[in-house]
Amino acid sequence: MLLYYSPGACSLAAHIVLEELELPHELERVHTGYDEHETAAYRAVNPVGLVPTLEVEGRRLTETTAILRYLARRAPERGLYPNAPETAARIDELMSRLSTLAHPAYRMVIRPDRVVKAVEGVPHDGIRAIGQRDFGAIFDHIEASLPSEGFAAGDYSIADPYLFVLWSWSRYAGFDSDRWAKMSRIARDVGRRPATRAALRAEALVDESGRPTPPERV
Amino acid sequence: MLLYYSPGACSLAAHIVLEELELPHELERVHTGYDEHETAAYRAVNPVGLVPTLEVEGRRLTETTAILRYLARRAPERGLYPNAPETAARIDELMSRLSTLAHPAYRMVIRPDRVVKAVEGVPHDGIRAIGQRDFGAIFDHIEASLPSEGFAAGDYSIADPYLFVLWSWSRYAGFDSDRWAKMSRIARDVGRRPATRAALRAEALVDESGRPTPPERV
Repeated sequence: MLLYYSPGACSLAAHIVLEELELPHELERVHTGYDEHETAAYRAVNPVGLVPTLEVEGRRLTETTAILRYLARRAPERGLYPNAPETAARIDELMSRLSTLAHPAYRMVIRPDRVVKAVEGVPHDGIRAIGQRDFGAIFDHIEASLPSEGFAAGDYSIADPYLFVLWSWSRYAGFDSDRWAKMSRIARDVGRRPATRAALRAEALVDESGRPTPPERV
Repeated sequence: MLLYYSPGACSLAAHIVLEELELPHELERVHTGYDEHETAAYRAVNPVGLVPTLEVEGRRLTETTAILRYLARRAPERGLYPNAPETAARIDELMSRLSTLAHPAYRMVIRPDRVVKAVEGVPHDGIRAIGQRDFGAIFDHIEASLPSEGFAAGDYSIADPYLFVLWSWSRYAGFDSDRWAKMSRIARDVGRRPATRAALRAEALVDESGRPTPPERV
């Protein structure tokens, strides 16, 4: 498998799960901070121009949540995406809130220029304000929905590394990440796992002492 | 099961699947066109304030794509969300593009006032222009990814009624829906199914002659 990723982007969730499941993989860096996802070469890989893309035996799969589920289904015995309707529903609900509400809001905060592009008369600070309000609101709702112990859906699942990545973004969105106590507990537990440490190291997101560092550019 | 829905909203996809699987259900109308999703009563049902919500044995599940998967898992023998990794991945990828890219763009087109809310200095027509550009772009990408025959992932799956609903929105977003030929073919095939007809009738989205009518208000 080949994972196209950008350091610290939501592709990191897929990267963590590849490590977690010990699936042999190679990495191809497509640095969105340097607009490498906008090149013709990458558009040929993923026409929508987003990371991650997972290449498996010549076929390409896009969309973070689709890749997370696919990887979990390749190793069903590891139980990262159980098929039991109630448990799967909690995982699906959380991943949907992260991908459909939190992520679009984050994009507005961090790169309003990309959201607005050539449309005239829309101030970037207004887009940023909308994104910041919506990001905080959905994180408040997610926090309220989380259990007070264990991972997001009980046992460790694909929802947890995804939550970890979006939570790690909250400081760039202008929030004190500790504001969300249950989310912080889960994210820190994810962050301590060897698979997560390995993925962070491979994306150069830890310094020499092993402390997390932000991506060089977003 | 009890489905909270708004006529023609993305809750319609869940409604169609309830009919398709012949799962006994009741309906509770929460008309977003009249801001009924903003009431304290509905916020007590779904704190995020979106439709649909599915109530099952006193537990509540939110987020369209989570509900679609949940319903399919309740009737696995019907095969609306097969567990085979490759097939599921195609369904997941499409549902992610619809929910994370097409739907947020549509919201910008149709209700820029709700997107902007109290943030000052952001013109609604600018938000609408961003949404319209992004909606068209992701629909172009989805169109290119669809097969030239059959449903979106081969056999009929939960991705198809969801595609049907978002495709039916494209005319309100200012597009000629026929612009996307493969998507139109699939949507029309979904629209002809008895389960879809039943859901449209129950949401009062067909006139006396059986022709589709738009929701009274969005």
